[in-house]
This record gives sequence, structure tokens and C-alpha cells, in this order.
Amino acid sequence: MARIDINCDFGESFGAYRIGEEEAILDYVTSVNIACGFHAGDPIVMRKTVQMALSRGIAVGAHPGFPDLLGFGRRNIDVTPDEVYAYVVYQVGALSAFVKAEGGELTHVKPHGALYNMSAKDVPLAEAIAKAVYDIDPTLILYGLAGSELITAGKKIGLKTASEVFADRTYQQDGSLTQRSDPNALIADEREAVRQVMRMVQEGRVRSLQGIDVSIEAETVCIHGDGAKAVIFAKQLYETLQDAGVEIRPFSD
Amino acid sequence: MARIDINCDFGESFGAYRIGEEEAILDYVTSVNIACGFHAGDPIVMRKTVQMALSRGIAVGAHPGFPDLLGFGRRNIDVTPDEVYAYVVYQVGALSAFVKAEGGELTHVKPHGALYNMSAKDVPLAEAIAKAVYDIDPTLILYGLAGSELITAGKKIGLKTASEVFADRTYQQDGSLTQRSDPNALIADEREAVRQVMRMVQEGRVRSLQGIDVSIEAETVCIHGDGAKAVIFAKQLYETLQDAGVEIRPFSD
Amino acid sequence: MARIDINCDFGESFGAYRIGEEEAILDYVTSVNIACGFHAGDPIVMRKTVQMALSRGIAVGAHPGFPDLLGFGRRNIDVTPDEVYAYVVYQVGALSAFVKAEGGELTHVKPHGALYNMSAKDVPLAEAIAKAVYDIDPTLILYGLAGSELITAGKKIGLKTASEVFADRTYQQDGSLTQRSDPNALIADEREAVRQVMRMVQEGRVRSLQGIDVSIEAETVCIHGDGAKAVIFAKQLYETLQDAGVEIRPFSD
Amino acid sequence: MARIDINCDFGESFGAYRIGEEEAILDYVTSVNIACGFHAGDPIVMRKTVQMALSRGIAVGAHPGFPDLLGFGRRNIDVTPDEVYAYVVYQVGALSAFVKAEGGELTHVKPHGALYNMSAKDVPLAEAIAKAVYDIDPTLILYGLAGSELITAGKKIGLKTASEVFADRTYQQDGSLTQRSDPNALIADEREAVRQVMRMVQEGRVRSLQGIDVSIEAETVCIHGDGAKAVIFAKQLYETLQDAGVEIRPFSD
Repeated sequence: MARIDINCDFGESFGAYRIGEEEAILDYVTSVNIACGFHAGDPIVMRKTVQMALSRGIAVGAHPGFPDLLGFGRRNIDVTPDEVYAYVVYQVGALSAFVKAEGGELTHVKPHGALYNMSAKDVPLAEAIAKAVYDIDPTLILYGLAGSELITAGKKIGLKTASEVFADRTYQQDGSLTQRSDPNALIADEREAVRQVMRMVQEGRVRSLQGIDVSIEAETVCIHGDGAKAVIFAKQLYETLQDAGVEIRPFSD
Repeated sequence: MARIDINCDFGESFGAYRIGEEEAILDYVTSVNIACGFHAGDPIVMRKTVQMALSRGIAVGAHPGFPDLLGFGRRNIDVTPDEVYAYVVYQVGALSAFVKAEGGELTHVKPHGALYNMSAKDVPLAEAIAKAVYDIDPTLILYGLAGSELITAGKKIGLKTASEVFADRTYQQDGSLTQRSDPNALIADEREAVRQVMRMVQEGRVRSLQGIDVSIEAETVCIHGDGAKAVIFAKQLYETLQDAGVEIRPFSD
Repeated sequence: MARIDINCDFGESFGAYRIGEEEAILDYVTSVNIACGFHAGDPIVMRKTVQMALSRGIAVGAHPGFPDLLGFGRRNIDVTPDEVYAYVVYQVGALSAFVKAEGGELTHVKPHGALYNMSAKDVPLAEAIAKAVYDIDPTLILYGLAGSELITAGKKIGLKTASEVFADRTYQQDGSLTQRSDPNALIADEREAVRQVMRMVQEGRVRSLQGIDVSIEAETVCIHGDGAKAVIFAKQLYETLQDAGVEIRPFSD
Repeated sequence: MARIDINCDFGESFGAYRIGEEEAILDYVTSVNIACGFHAGDPIVMRKTVQMALSRGIAVGAHPGFPDLLGFGRRNIDVTPDEVYAYVVYQVGALSAFVKAEGGELTHVKPHGALYNMSAKDVPLAEAIAKAVYDIDPTLILYGLAGSELITAGKKIGLKTASEVFADRTYQQDGSLTQRSDPNALIADEREAVRQVMRMVQEGRVRSLQGIDVSIEAETVCIHGDGAKAVIFAKQLYETLQDAGVEIRPFSD
């Protein structure tokens, strides 16, 4: 039977600043990736978000990013692998302590934004992240872009990995995501987004922008957590997958 | 036989900024308290400092402070107990991950600067810190000012505590430290500082500025890590204690 | 004829974080106080906010705060007058450059949050702020709580000052604001808030929580800028003042 | 008569962190570029550094960098021209206020580190910086690498520019600096460094690493301000230039 994990980035508020995350979306996800205070999130927000996720039985992961609150971790920074290693250990450790303090267990790590994108292609960065995760706890699962260097690095060091696909992003014929700067990067039509996920999950294929089918491993699908529309989409996706008999559960189960 | 732990704050560099810590001082201390990135320290510095301490068999503790790099964590900030709880969990978790990644074990937590001073007198803050440490790992030892509310809070929640004394600070007749703003706050004469420690360790007493002896519990003594003079003092203190047959070893042993 | 300036704090977004400010409120204010990057705001936000205000002919002021983005500048920090002086020069200078770059002129300075509250009572802090403003440009107007030490310090050094009153805060019989921790600190009923402003503007009096009338100088009234309700209230206040023949214009005119 | 300005980056301390700058070096420089709080410096440090420079009659410039204290502004960040424009206006404005408060006048702007290097080659970034400086004050002088896009952009918008050369860096045959990663990037021999400056100043030429002479415009030479050795070198350079009859004075004179 086909199986999928639905994950969502969460806990991105900071101090007095609220990112409009809808708690209702947690009804339709099986894993959350919680910001760790570098690109978003703060200690108070991390604690509350961990409590919220654990109380609903959702798998809790760390979502480390660049130390760039001003840029929300979305800007490439010319870092060394040693810096990335240390940034990941630091942030995963911090989040892990909140999870432990609440009696839970951290299940996975998914890099955020520019760190995610850079480590999809840059082998030394990918290996630095994989090593950081492994050194903290070799049973943690590494989430990364399907087909990325990060997934390769994770497998190489001996981590369990989860290949991630996106519902609302278009793909290139080499299996990579279309750059956000491209006007066709996003799928606005929600039914089309749901259909794309269904094909990836059930057939292991995605139709690229070039019109050619590409093989893709879909172990976890990322959805957005902010905005009321996000909840509607999440519900639709969840129910479509469920109706099709796809097993929806945390990758870590 | 009398026994003492000698601790030192360490790892306070940040980015390109070096605090002039002398590695040589580590020959004369049994525990270090490593800054966690809020008032000082950064992920790269934390990793290196943890490696250095573990390689010498020194007990490694976390040294969390206020999120105030500009003020080096020395300025009182009007925080809530919930904020302090979350700040401590975050920082201890981050440092703990570096210790774990290096194959070591975190032994203790000692708050820094204004957080240390405020939690010596403010019961809700002291209890928030004690709870944070306990929730992360109830076997961690809480370091605090001898006679402080922090020590009381630690014992109350069930933590092992280490009462800290200072070599170069003068004491008041109520057992508190003389305020730094007082011109008599510091002991400049190193032999006098050594003598003060010897009495605290061997007799459990300290002569207050008012000339009256005060009872004091000396389980760990704090020395400074920066400056060449610091190493000379540390050596002198270490050897005097050793010659007097005082057992010098980590409190956590 | 009675006259009033209506001011509003603005430009408090940061990076990806939006504070839900309503541009529509600018129809009903004559001055804005723009956050300068320490407690809120960032260079991009500052530029856009300055452009928006200047294009509407609204008087532009700087709104410096503590370097505490995490606490939104609302937490007291134990700073020295020298620190406060430097923080104010820095922030006012930064905002001033955006105003100058857009061809406008900075008219006033109003401290934010904890800095505002502390300088209302602490003479050395108040004098440090007044001196900072004076040293940058002696023609700048200093906004402060009516009856505060900040207003006194401003007058003493030779600055023009604007005594500020609040529409939705209750007052004590000594003319101070009721502490926010008090359940009666806020006036929820908007008509009552409008009435309070009218009396302050027209009669120079406010009914204290103790039921006794207190004299108060109302040269500028502060209203909130976030939320749709804020616009409705602003409109109501504006029109009531206008209908009563009160002249509504920037204090700096 | 040949003429040169000798500039030095200064005021790079932050909070409790001291960069070991030698005040003595100010005897041998005619311009300083003062850090503005993003990559280094803080309001207290900025004020003191401005006072120190003005009291010695040295030309004061702003030294804006990336918002990356952790990386000391040395890491490339993938910023937009709009971001760079706003970062420069903000920082130059802040420093300018300290200069004005001390009764002085800001003379120039020199970007720092990665911002300096990126704007040497990236036209839109270079133009954003030039426009920011121009919009603040069209009489400010823009310092940039000799032959860089920054100098071109400055001239294009109508700013006076100062082409900068380095004493201790080697050059490529296209006139660019040898990358720091290259083992031959630095000139360790001080006499050779002095000779290189002399040729650049007197002949407008530099011998490239490839052995070919390259034309170079030397209007200002950058020397380092930290370390006792820096002072010795500065003195040596100053006296050699003086003995050769080169006029040493601020570019802004």
C-alpha cells in the first residue's frame, strides 16, 4: 500500500511577531518541522509549538536555518561546512531539549530555506549537515529534497532519510524544483497541486514543466501552515489521499 | 578530607572577537562553564571549547545567560519566569548537543552574569531555572551562589547543587557578595584571595568586609580564565590547596 | 482655539514579519513615530514607511527603543545614561538618513516602550535622551509623557517638547498612567476614550481612576496603528475633534 | 607633487569585545573608516571612535557592512540592491549622527568586507551603494577598490570617488586583488609592502603576481589598525612617503 508523511514547517513566530499559522492545519499533518531561533522562532515559541505538536501526537522535527532573522533564512550565505555543522548541532540541540523537557522524542531534522536549497546541490554542505545530525543522534531521520545531495549524504553516513516532495511547486525535467524566480514556479490551482501529489505518491512520477515525466521518490510531502487557505488545501489533500487508500502517517513510525 | 571543585567560565569568544582566554588555565580547573551563544559564545566556539575541555577530562557545564550580546549578559533585564525557563532550556540544549556529539556528557549548569545575580535573590526566577535544568535532565548539577535562592530552588526540585564561592570577591556579613559598584568589592592581593579560599574550603567561613566571620558552604570556587595573570593565580591556588591536602576534583565526580 | 497633534507608532514590521498596520489610519494622524531597527523595524521597512508618511504630508519622527527585538523593546533593561545616549543618537541618525534621502525633514523623536516609561521617571536617563536629541539637532521636538521627567529634561536643555496623552489608557490621581498590569489600565469603550481625549484637549483635565480630576497638558495624543478597529477609532476621534472645532495638525507646524 | 591619503578601518570593537586597535596608529593615518554596528562596532564604540578621530583632525568616514556580526561582515550574502541601498543609508545615517553630535563632518563612505568585494564586481550592488551615498549627501566621497565597479558607479551618479590600493595585498595582471585563498595573496615583507605603495603612488603602477606591470590609480592606501606591528609598519610607510616628498593628507581636503 502506498504511504506518505505530510509535513509542515511550524513555529516561525518571533517575539511580538506572529506568523499566521493555523493550528487547525495540524489536523492534517503527521510531522512538523519547528524553527530553532536562527531564521525564525524563539525559545518561548519553540516550547509552545513543541507542546502543541506533542499533544496531538505529531512527529516533531527540528528545522534549522541560517543565522539570518532579517532574511528569514532565505538568503544564501557563503558559509563553510564547519560553520554549517556547528549551526545544525546548536539548533537541533536547542529544539531537542524542549522536546525532552516535554517528555517527547525528536524524530527528524529538515534544513530550512537557503540552507535546504544549498545543501541540495553542495556536497560538502550536505555532508556537514548529515554528520551534525548523525553526531547528535544516529537514529534521527534526515528530511531533504528528493534526489538531492542532502539525501545522498544522509544515506552515506548511515542516517535514515525521507525524500521530500512539494505539492505546490513545479518540477524540471532533471527532477529539480523550478526556481522561485521563474513565473511558472508555483502551482496556483489547488486541484492540480493535489493531483501532482497523488501521482508522486502513487506512481512515483511527476510531470515536469517541459512536459516529460520524471521519476521521483515521495516519502514526505511538504505543505504550508500559514493562512486560512492553507487549512482548506491541507484538508483536501489529506482526504484525497485517504480516499485513495494511501496510508498517511509519520515517516518516523 | 576537605574537597573542592575549581570552575572557570570559558568559551566566551564570538565570531571574529576573541576573549583572551588562556588554555593553560585548564591545567588548574576541574570544571568549565561554557557560554551558550546568548551573552557570549557561538556555535563554532562552543564546539572547540567542548573539545578542549573533554580532551583534558574536565567536567563540562552550560553557562546560559541573557540574550544580550551587546551587554555581555551583565545587564538586568525585566524578564518573566517563563522567559527564563525557555532561555535556559534552549541554551543548555544547544551546548548539550555539542557535548554529546563529541562523545562526552554534560555535568552541570551555571547561570551567567545578571541571570546568576538575579536568580540569587528572585525566587520565581530561581525556580524557573531549577525547573528548566530538571526538565532537561534531573541528574544535572545546578551551580549557584552559596546561600542563594538558586541553590534553595535547586534542592527543592530535587537537583544536586554546588554552592559556589569566589576567590577575589569580598563578602558582606549576611553572606552575600559585595556589590561590584563598591570600591572594596574585589580582592586585588592574590595571596589574600588564596587565603580566603583556603578558609572557606577548610573552615567553611569567610571574613566579611564588616570584620565578622560568616559561615559559607564552599563546594566549588570560581576563578577567572582571561589574562596571563589568571594562570599564575590559578596555579598558586591549585598548589596551595593541594599542599594543604585538599582534594581537588570535579563536583560531579 | 484648541489644537492637537494625533500621533501613531508606525513601521514596526521586521524582515518577513508583518505587524498588521493599516495604511488607512494615516488619514487620521498628523505625526508618525517610526521604529528604528532596535526593538522593531528594519532598513527596508524604515525606507518604505518614511516614503509613505512623506507622500501624505505627515510629520515624521524617530521612535528609538532598546536593542531588544525579542522583547519588542518592552522590557526594562538596566542601562547607563551613556548607553541610552548612544542608542538614541544611533537610531535617530539612521532614521534621519532615510528621511533626508527622500527629501523630507525629521521633525521629532519619541522613545519607545520601556525606554519611554523608564525615562518618564528616571532623571539621568531622561537627560541622556534629551541631550542625544539636542546634540543631533536642537530643532527636533521631543515627545514624552505629559508631566514626565523626559519633558522636564527636554525643556531644560532647550528643546521644544510635546506632552503626550493617551486615548485608551486610564490615569492615576498623580497624573501618571495606570500600570498595564492593573486590570483597569485600559479603556475598552471607544466612546469613553474619545470623551477622555476631548476633555484633555479642551479643558486640560482628565478624570483619574480615583475619581478626582487632574490637570494634564495635551499637545499630542497617541493612537494605535494596528488592526481594522484602530482605523475606526481613529476616524471617530478625528471627526469628533474636528466637529468640535479643534485644530488638528502636526505639533511641528 | 604626488599626494596620498592613508586610511584605516577603525572602531570594530563590540560590547565587551575588544579588537586590539592601537590608538598610536592614528598618528600615521589621515582618514578612518568607522564600523557602523552591522558587522562590527556598537553605539558606544562608534561615539568614542568618532571623538578620538575628530580630536586628532582625522577625516571620518562610515564603514558600512553586512548585518552579520557572527561573520564580521566577511561572508557573501545573497542580497538585493534594494536591501544594500537600505543597509547603507541606515548605517551611514547612524554614524553621521555621532559625527554631527560631536561637531564634526562626515567626509566619506567605504563599504566593508564582503560588501566591498561584491560591489567591486556586481554593477547593481555598486549602483545601489553609490545611490545610497548620493541620496544621503552628494558631497560625500565614495571609497572603493581602484578599478572597481563601485568607483565607476560612484563617478556615474556624480560622487567624488577615492580609488583605494592596498599595501600588503598582491595584485593580478587584470588589476584585481589576489584572492585571499591564494597562498600568495599577502605581502609579508614590510619593506616590500612599502615599496609597492611607493610605486603605486609615484608611478601609478603595480607589479602583478604574474610579473607584469599594471596601471593603478592610488588615491588612498589602506593599512591595518590592529596589533603593535601595525603601528611600526604605519610609521615606516608614513615616513618613507614623507621623505620622498609625497604629500600625505586626507582625500577630502
